[in-house]
Amino acid sequence: MMKNALYGGINAAVLTPMHADLSPDHARMAAHCKWLLANGCNGLGILGTTGEATSFSVAERRGIMEAMVAAGVPAARMMPGAGCAALTDSVELVKAAAALGCTGALVLPPFYYKGVSDDGLFAWFSEVIQRTGGSTKVYLYHFPQQSALPFSHDLIGRLLKAYPGTIKGVKDSSGSFENMQKMCALFAKDGFEVYSGADDLLTKVLAEGGAGCITAAANVNSSVGRLVYANFGNPEGARAQEKLSATRHAITTAPLIGGLKALMARHTGDKAWLNIRPPHTPITDAQAKALFDAFDATGVSLAAA
Amino acid sequence: MMKNALYGGINAAVLTPMHADLSPDHARMAAHCKWLLANGCNGLGILGTTGEATSFSVAERRGIMEAMVAAGVPAARMMPGAGCAALTDSVELVKAAAALGCTGALVLPPFYYKGVSDDGLFAWFSEVIQRTGGSTKVYLYHFPQQSALPFSHDLIGRLLKAYPGTIKGVKDSSGSFENMQKMCALFAKDGFEVYSGADDLLTKVLAEGGAGCITAAANVNSSVGRLVYANFGNPEGARAQEKLSATRHAITTAPLIGGLKALMARHTGDKAWLNIRPPHTPITDAQAKALFDAFDATGVSLAAA
Repeated sequence: MMKNALYGGINAAVLTPMHADLSPDHARMAAHCKWLLANGCNGLGILGTTGEATSFSVAERRGIMEAMVAAGVPAARMMPGAGCAALTDSVELVKAAAALGCTGALVLPPFYYKGVSDDGLFAWFSEVIQRTGGSTKVYLYHFPQQSALPFSHDLIGRLLKAYPGTIKGVKDSSGSFENMQKMCALFAKDGFEVYSGADDLLTKVLAEGGAGCITAAANVNSSVGRLVYANFGNPEGARAQEKLSATRHAITTAPLIGGLKALMARHTGDKAWLNIRPPHTPITDAQAKALFDAFDATGVSLAAA
Repeated sequence: MMKNALYGGINAAVLTPMHADLSPDHARMAAHCKWLLANGCNGLGILGTTGEATSFSVAERRGIMEAMVAAGVPAARMMPGAGCAALTDSVELVKAAAALGCTGALVLPPFYYKGVSDDGLFAWFSEVIQRTGGSTKVYLYHFPQQSALPFSHDLIGRLLKAYPGTIKGVKDSSGSFENMQKMCALFAKDGFEVYSGADDLLTKVLAEGGAGCITAAANVNSSVGRLVYANFGNPEGARAQEKLSATRHAITTAPLIGGLKALMARHTGDKAWLNIRPPHTPITDAQAKALFDAFDATGVSLAAA
C-alpha cells in the first residue's frame, strides 16, 4: 500500500445530478460531494465516465467545477476529469482545475480517433502539459473499453521520464489486475499512484503498492470501502472487502449510471436524481427492482452510512 | 443515381490547415475550399474526420465555419461536421451551421460511450433536433471504425419517421458497399441521400440510387471524381472511376490525414500545410516518398486540376 499518495484511499467517480432540462444541478451535486466526504471518501473523481463528463460542454464542466468550490467542496480533494477529444479543450480544463486549487486532474487520451500511435499520444500529452505548465498533477485515465486507446507501459514510462513532476498516477478502469500489478511494479517506486477502477480489486491493488480506488460504486458503498482501506492487512479489512465486492457485483446487474442514479433517488427520496443525459437513458422499473433486490441482499445500507 | 440531392456529386472531407502553433489557419483553408469548388467539388464537408474536427474546441470549430463564410465560401455548399461527444456541443454547432446558412450538418453519434443502445442514440438525436428546431438538415455520419457506434437501419428508419423534414441522408464511411446498398433500397425513396465515404464505391453507390460521395481523397482527386459523376453510366465514367479508385488506393499507403497534408504541401510549395494537431503526427520522409510515388503512378496531377 502506497503511503502519502495524494488521493490515497477511496475516491468516488461522482455522479452528476441534473435538472429536468438536463442542465447540471450544482446544489444537489455539492450536497452529494459533501455526503461522500463524510461517508468514507477521501477524494472526489468528479466529471469522469460515471459523471457523464463527456456529455457536457467544456463550459458546463467548468461551471460544475467552479460551483463545487463555491459551495465549499474542498478543491484539493477533487480530481476533475479533464479528458476531451480536443487538445484545446483538455488544456482549458486542466488550467481550470489548477486555478481552482485541485491537486490533480484525470485525463483520458483523445478518444475520437482510433489506432493512434504511442508517438501520437505522447505528442498529445506533451502539448497538454507544456500548455498548462505542469500546473496540476496529471493522472492518466486508462479505460480502453470506452476510450479504445490504451496506455502502454512504454508510453507511461516515456511520459514519466519527460514530465516527472507532473505525471502522477493512473486510474485503471480496464478491470485487469495484471495490468495494475505491472504498473505498480514498474512505476510505484517513482511515486506513481495506481488507483483501481474496480472495487473488487482494491485490497489486491493495495497489496501491490497501489494507492486506492476511484470507482462508480463508491457513490453508494464508500462507507464499506473506508473499512477496507483502514483495515488493510487484517481480518476486518478482508471481511469488508467481501462486502465491497458484493456491492460492486450487485450494481453491475443494471446499466451503471442509470442504476446508481436510481439508487440515489431511492435513498434520498428525490426523483430529480433520475435525470440523465442521452445517450444514457433511465433504467426501467424492472431493472430497478432487480438492482434494488441485489443491492439490499449485500446488507449495505446508504442510510446507515 | 439520385436526382436533386442537396449535395449531389463530389464533396471533399476538407483538410484543416493550421498555423505552427496549431491554431486553425482560416486564410489557407478558405483558399483550399475555393480551389476545391473550382476543381470538381460540388460541396464541402468541412470539419469532418479528415478535417481533424474533434481535435478542435467548439469555439475553434465555430470560428472556422464563420471565417469560411466571411471569406466568401458559399455557406449553402458547406456541410460542417457537428458531431461531438456532448449533447450541448452538437446543439451549438448545428445552430451555428443553420445561422450561417449551411444546407446541412453532418452529425456523428456521441462517441465516447460504447455499447450505447438504439434507444439511447434515438434519444440523443431527438434532443439535438428538438433543441435546434430542425433548422438545418441533419446528415448521419456512419463511421463505426472511429465512432464505434453504428447506425442500424432500424434506428435510421425511426429517426426518418420522427423527423422526416430534418433527417436527410448519411455519409457512410464504413467501406461496406452492402450497407450503402441496403440504405439506398430502404430509404432513397424518401429522399434520403446516401453518400459513400470511399471513392472506389462511387459508381456502384450511384447505381443503387445514391447521391454521391464525401471523401478524404477528394482533397486531391476531385477533378477526376467530377468526371465519374458527370459521365455516370457511360464508358468515360467507367474509365474515370478506375483512375479515381487508383488515387484512393495510392493514398492509403500512408497515414491518411498526414499524407493528404503532405500532398498539399508538395502541390502548393507551402510547408505550413504539414502542420497537424496531435494525436496525429506528420508523416515521415520515407512515408512521403512512398506516397508521392504511388500517387504519381496514377497519372493524376493536382497542378493540372
